[in-house]
Amino acid sequence: MPTPLRYGMIGGGRDAFIGAVHRMAAALDQQAVLVAGALSSTPEKSRASGRDLGLPDDRNYASWQGMLEQESRRPEGDRIDFVSIVTPNHTHFEIARAFADAGFHVVLDKPMVHTSEQAAQLVETVERRGVVFAVTYNYTGYPLVRQAREMVRAGEIGPVRKVFVEYHQGWLSTQLEATGSKQAGWRTDPARSGIAGAVGDIGTHAENLTHFITGLEIASLAADLTAFVPGRRLDDDASVLLRFRPERGVAAKGVLTCSQICSGEENGLAIRVYGERGALKWRQEEPNQLVHIPEGGPQRILTRGGPGLGPSAAAATRIPAGHPEAFIEAFANIYRGAIDAIRARSSGSPPSSLAELIPTVRDGARGVRFIERVVESSRRDAAWLDF
Amino acid sequence: MPTPLRYGMIGGGRDAFIGAVHRMAAALDQQAVLVAGALSSTPEKSRASGRDLGLPDDRNYASWQGMLEQESRRPEGDRIDFVSIVTPNHTHFEIARAFADAGFHVVLDKPMVHTSEQAAQLVETVERRGVVFAVTYNYTGYPLVRQAREMVRAGEIGPVRKVFVEYHQGWLSTQLEATGSKQAGWRTDPARSGIAGAVGDIGTHAENLTHFITGLEIASLAADLTAFVPGRRLDDDASVLLRFRPERGVAAKGVLTCSQICSGEENGLAIRVYGERGALKWRQEEPNQLVHIPEGGPQRILTRGGPGLGPSAAAATRIPAGHPEAFIEAFANIYRGAIDAIRARSSGSPPSSLAELIPTVRDGARGVRFIERVVESSRRDAAWLDF
Amino acid sequence: MPTPLRYGMIGGGRDAFIGAVHRMAAALDQQAVLVAGALSSTPEKSRASGRDLGLPDDRNYASWQGMLEQESRRPEGDRIDFVSIVTPNHTHFEIARAFADAGFHVVLDKPMVHTSEQAAQLVETVERRGVVFAVTYNYTGYPLVRQAREMVRAGEIGPVRKVFVEYHQGWLSTQLEATGSKQAGWRTDPARSGIAGAVGDIGTHAENLTHFITGLEIASLAADLTAFVPGRRLDDDASVLLRFRPERGVAAKGVLTCSQICSGEENGLAIRVYGERGALKWRQEEPNQLVHIPEGGPQRILTRGGPGLGPSAAAATRIPAGHPEAFIEAFANIYRGAIDAIRARSSGSPPSSLAELIPTVRDGARGVRFIERVVESSRRDAAWLDF
Amino acid sequence: MPTPLRYGMIGGGRDAFIGAVHRMAAALDQQAVLVAGALSSTPEKSRASGRDLGLPDDRNYASWQGMLEQESRRPEGDRIDFVSIVTPNHTHFEIARAFADAGFHVVLDKPMVHTSEQAAQLVETVERRGVVFAVTYNYTGYPLVRQAREMVRAGEIGPVRKVFVEYHQGWLSTQLEATGSKQAGWRTDPARSGIAGAVGDIGTHAENLTHFITGLEIASLAADLTAFVPGRRLDDDASVLLRFRPERGVAAKGVLTCSQICSGEENGLAIRVYGERGALKWRQEEPNQLVHIPEGGPQRILTRGGPGLGPSAAAATRIPAGHPEAFIEAFANIYRGAIDAIRARSSGSPPSSLAELIPTVRDGARGVRFIERVVESSRRDAAWLDF
Repeated sequence: MPTPLRYGMIGGGRDAFIGAVHRMAAALDQQAVLVAGALSSTPEKSRASGRDLGLPDDRNYASWQGMLEQESRRPEGDRIDFVSIVTPNHTHFEIARAFADAGFHVVLDKPMVHTSEQAAQLVETVERRGVVFAVTYNYTGYPLVRQAREMVRAGEIGPVRKVFVEYHQGWLSTQLEATGSKQAGWRTDPARSGIAGAVGDIGTHAENLTHFITGLEIASLAADLTAFVPGRRLDDDASVLLRFRPERGVAAKGVLTCSQICSGEENGLAIRVYGERGALKWRQEEPNQLVHIPEGGPQRILTRGGPGLGPSAAAATRIPAGHPEAFIEAFANIYRGAIDAIRARSSGSPPSSLAELIPTVRDGARGVRFIERVVESSRRDAAWLDF
Repeated sequence: MPTPLRYGMIGGGRDAFIGAVHRMAAALDQQAVLVAGALSSTPEKSRASGRDLGLPDDRNYASWQGMLEQESRRPEGDRIDFVSIVTPNHTHFEIARAFADAGFHVVLDKPMVHTSEQAAQLVETVERRGVVFAVTYNYTGYPLVRQAREMVRAGEIGPVRKVFVEYHQGWLSTQLEATGSKQAGWRTDPARSGIAGAVGDIGTHAENLTHFITGLEIASLAADLTAFVPGRRLDDDASVLLRFRPERGVAAKGVLTCSQICSGEENGLAIRVYGERGALKWRQEEPNQLVHIPEGGPQRILTRGGPGLGPSAAAATRIPAGHPEAFIEAFANIYRGAIDAIRARSSGSPPSSLAELIPTVRDGARGVRFIERVVESSRRDAAWLDF
Repeated sequence: MPTPLRYGMIGGGRDAFIGAVHRMAAALDQQAVLVAGALSSTPEKSRASGRDLGLPDDRNYASWQGMLEQESRRPEGDRIDFVSIVTPNHTHFEIARAFADAGFHVVLDKPMVHTSEQAAQLVETVERRGVVFAVTYNYTGYPLVRQAREMVRAGEIGPVRKVFVEYHQGWLSTQLEATGSKQAGWRTDPARSGIAGAVGDIGTHAENLTHFITGLEIASLAADLTAFVPGRRLDDDASVLLRFRPERGVAAKGVLTCSQICSGEENGLAIRVYGERGALKWRQEEPNQLVHIPEGGPQRILTRGGPGLGPSAAAATRIPAGHPEAFIEAFANIYRGAIDAIRARSSGSPPSSLAELIPTVRDGARGVRFIERVVESSRRDAAWLDF
Repeated sequence: MPTPLRYGMIGGGRDAFIGAVHRMAAALDQQAVLVAGALSSTPEKSRASGRDLGLPDDRNYASWQGMLEQESRRPEGDRIDFVSIVTPNHTHFEIARAFADAGFHVVLDKPMVHTSEQAAQLVETVERRGVVFAVTYNYTGYPLVRQAREMVRAGEIGPVRKVFVEYHQGWLSTQLEATGSKQAGWRTDPARSGIAGAVGDIGTHAENLTHFITGLEIASLAADLTAFVPGRRLDDDASVLLRFRPERGVAAKGVLTCSQICSGEENGLAIRVYGERGALKWRQEEPNQLVHIPEGGPQRILTRGGPGLGPSAAAATRIPAGHPEAFIEAFANIYRGAIDAIRARSSGSPPSSLAELIPTVRDGARGVRFIERVVESSRRDAAWLDF
């Protein structure tokens, strides 16, 4: 095992949720060490948060700008190897572009940015500078999601005809944002979340998962968005019909639903893919199983670490079958991939399977486009729009 | 237990599938005896089928017209008490109207008829003649479906916001109709099935189940139908977005999907209903469980015959919890309901809970309307249509 | 379909549970008609129960002795073809032997009789008279139980090493017998139930299921019985270690548990069979699935009516996959088997697969022996006893 | 967050399985840093393994004895805070006692030692020296196992009557040890594993889980052990009947089975606890759910992070419901507990809930006793032995 990489984090201070997940994901495999941070939106809170995490004073920055400036001045080999950006959505663009432009590798939370214009600029910057850039569409890190991808891509279920993907939660069934909940607050606030609520928060994961597994490109879509909770300013529920571009002679269709008012649902991301010669089904809440129905049946239950899996699942697996891995391990696979990619970049060696499968800046851009088109379709009374 | 009713059957002879199910459903509770039949489309085949079932020669009719004529002549107390019509769809209207018009009670397979015009005429006939008329939307016969209905109607999950209903099968993933399969043949033939394939065969069950449980009325819908299998003449897959009329201040939405090309799926009818204060989930393939998530959770698993159930489920239950009842028992509950209704009609006593919940001619008419609007929307490129 | 058989029932009158199940099972396939009965333990109650069921007065008997005498006098072709005996356990022996001795075919509820001496006499009578004799070990009627049997017998999982079988209920967690419950009353009363409580009521089903599927013979056993509920006079919980006779070179072992104090369990009969080259798992409460783990995995979910099943499952199946069949259908398969056997006997034709698999008088005798040895082992502080 | 602790590891070098799990578990929460190691059984392999993990040369020890000597000489504040011992079982005693005796806190893999004599000496040493000592009965780290414990201890299911606990694997269904498998090799070798195979490797987890949740003490047991695989020298399958000491007036009973020849089973640890007023069921392979059946039902599905959970589950939970945590997170909870306990010890503050629930040296001793008594009972033909 080579020396762990050094990374800095922006956002993720006190009261944040996803920042701690990123730190666990980075720490799990002992290949990255947090050495710097600008963890909150105010200098005082940033410093306090940094002290919580044991950051040394000289790298416990008051602002991301300070961090960018100071770290850039450090010699290579001492400066951070990459930055994790886990701030609210509306700040992603400016920060990510600045770090990428300065040549830092970046791990960025989704949705990537607010508009397709920003996305295009970010793509340009990232590709121009040649930095590694991972958007944490973390659900693609699950071994059995990778297995599903591998099987679909290998034609094991034939050309895809129909995809059902859903991401159902219930935690916003009431007007939680009116109670002072920080998590609910920014997600339901157009200023910080952008034009979409549930669609931006979770629908984009569903779109990404669908593309990751099937490789299908959306040709057109029709979306019906709703804000069910009185007083809510952004959608908390969406139903989207999808038509994909023909692939191997078949123009597949899809149904994507996401909702945060499905009372009692916790984190119900699930996908079912039906092809001409079989089907695959996977649920995030039971991630160690993948149902495969081959042509003529009967169904087979593939298990993480179990028999019948291919190399991409194996590369994403740490411990034997029956010893379940879950959310944090999947998230950590994105980090392992980014770290592998950074090492490959610096050593000139070919990227590992983990590195090849990180969600890229282009995946992020497609996700932004998805949000925009869904919102636009809904504004036009669920009209069909080209993608 | 009073004397069993006498019934006649039209259709359901050799090679038929659903006729045998009707006969088992009628026989199970020993409250109906098959005494007459016109079981096939040709006189010879009818007679042979009738002999198979042990029908006496004088009531083993060569045609439904003969049966209608002869049975009408028999004195009350000797003639059949009701008729079960299990012929292909395109013949439903003529036969059902003739029997109802002659004053016979009718059990009729779904979809009821081919057009809303026919449906309106049938409604008129049935209501004018005052006969009992049950359309075998058999899935409403499951005890836990009735429990779900009772709970939603009692407000236990609050006003409904979102309904997901799906009916996914895989048996038509290939062009089975080209192989001589009788079941596939008529279902994919516009002359016998009408304007819809999967939508008419199974989508209408999904619509009916949704209405049965929630009581919601569809305000408008947008539907995207596909015939995925090359050479198929009717839809084998449909995705339908629903908007319901406001109920208790909430305009619910729904997603209804039905498909017969979901490889490997057997008979995947399932519904999830999310209200302001909880949720209910039920799957036909595991019909002895109803998931209830009350406000604030955790989820409870209600079981047929188990604790916490109301009177409508109890009335539809024969044996204790843990001794599963299934498809035939649910189907038999429709028969029990029709029989109860016939007895109540003749005795003037109030109908039982089972009788009150039989799917009526108006349910049948709504189902026909649903098929028409779905097909029309799809023809207009999935445009929103008022219902 | 040939003319339905005529049968009479003994026991199963008002307030009884299992009698109604037998009648539904007999009626379902329309191959048996109830024409006579001696339905309760007193003449008045018998007659009233018979009137409930619409029995004609002349065959609505006051006692089983009267029924035996009168039916024997009727000419063949008019008398009952078989008798169903669903009385409390302590009366089984006398009634069953008398009818068998008079040449009537018999369907008898389990456990067959109270002692091995009685069982031996009954075996002798049945075999001497050559009557068809079915003991309603009804769980063997499930199609997927038959599939499991077929697979084990065909060596698909190799020689069996270990069997886990359990039958867990919770309904006797409290002293229900003290509340006047008829069902609890006789089951916990040594005078009516015999020497065992849970072991006789449900443990014997577990033993039978194990033997049916695996064909293994118990060589020795050690049993620890308990009456957990204060005041209870018979065991309500049992744990039994089994050692089987070597089969194909392997001396398998087993763990059989049965309990009626497993709070909240409904009718939890389940079996898991592990062989040298695979495993099978089945649960009565989800009877339409059989888990098969072939050597090297992954596991396959076989479904009733689905792909990959053999002839014995097919013969026990009425409707397509995904349209679940359940307890009553499985029970009815025992009746269909007995009826097939009776017809084969009278026509001299070979028995059908259903007829071959009915639980016989020898299965009943082995079940009685099992109860005796389990109780004896427990009396000796769970000592190992030869079977 | 205070400064992470420094720890050293003994064992866990190249080719080891469990050492890497310990390191991930220690790293996940960023509260422990590996600074020293003696990772293999030979000096060369140790050094190479240490270089793999990036250990500095001066703390990359050739042997545990060297590590003990050198670390003891370092000043407090520089020396390791605790040692993780993940060597094969037969070396546990000597190493653990030496480190504890030298005043180091210890995390030790299970089973703790080979004999009760060793266990008693270790208990004496640990208690005399006052060190924190955690045995990695890691399954107790699952949040819902802690929830189950809290509920049983609070009387939510009443006095316990019956416990079913099982740990079924299939990976040793063939003579894997003959193929050069390192994992299979030491586990089936009496010299390295001790007197028991499956019982020591996994049965002891089942015993520990039972005690952890219920608090029940085994009064006596009878065990039937088997080595099913030809040529195997230690048991690969065990069935154990348990009688517990009376608790709240009830003498509970139990059935504990463990097996490594259950073909196709992965890591099937599961427990069901039935009390006078309810039941709890948990399966390690689906660890984010706990089934609770309260008196009178219906069953409730408690989820990790979901509603209805108590403080001990909350303390063991990192991320919200629906974002599954699994094996590594549970393992890490043992580490968090040990670290909390070490900090509490050094600061004099009261231990956290996590610290209070670490499996102690006395749990380890009880586990050793369990193995001894099970093996002894089986040697006496499954005779009942006092515990």
